[in-house]
Amino acid sequence: MDRIPILRMGEFLLVTIQVDMHDQLALTLQDDLAERISATSAKAVLIDISALDMVDSFIGRMIANISGLSRIMDAETVVVGMQPAVAITLVELGLELPGVSTALNVERGMQLLRARVAAQ
Amino acid sequence: MDRIPILRMGEFLLVTIQVDMHDQLALTLQDDLAERISATSAKAVLIDISALDMVDSFIGRMIANISGLSRIMDAETVVVGMQPAVAITLVELGLELPGVSTALNVERGMQLLRARVAAQ
Repeated sequence: MDRIPILRMGEFLLVTIQVDMHDQLALTLQDDLAERISATSAKAVLIDISALDMVDSFIGRMIANISGLSRIMDAETVVVGMQPAVAITLVELGLELPGVSTALNVERGMQLLRARVAAQ
Repeated sequence: MDRIPILRMGEFLLVTIQVDMHDQLALTLQDDLAERISATSAKAVLIDISALDMVDSFIGRMIANISGLSRIMDAETVVVGMQPAVAITLVELGLELPGVSTALNVERGMQLLRARVAAQ
């Protein structure tokens, strides 16, 4: 497992994080995402973290980095499927992810993004 | 990592396989899928295997099992993102996955399914 797949769904990109992230995997994901946003003119990146039971500051920073990267490339970031314990941990760590939208699941995340794209 | 997340996208369910499957994980995935197909009345299951560089008869049988299960529950199965080497291996193993549709990526898989659902 050397890279996390990025799935294209129309104007959006979907990333499902299932495995423990280590430095190289996180860097590869950021590089791949930057390339795919550019290649597909994607409007948004959905990051599904429903498989994560816990989260540490490394993952928190990675999400913040992806969000910053997306914003520079004119795409939004929506984190979906966050478990309650993960939300509590992120707040306790002081990682409140400014500029990152959240949604309960992928479907609601897509609805949110479609509404925003339509309003533009 | 004790289960693979199943994402709902409208009438379809999406499963992204990123990690090595072992027996328990495969069984849990089948149980979870059966439950989610029933709970959501999903019309189809998309299985994304773009992260798999290689495949063995265990994965092949798992896909065949999921396909059989879905068919009984009135849902279709579409395998997407298969890498060329994986396709060659499946054919060499004699696992030609009868009854399973394939598509090059998730987006084309969704198009295929939407066309079929519309034609019903």
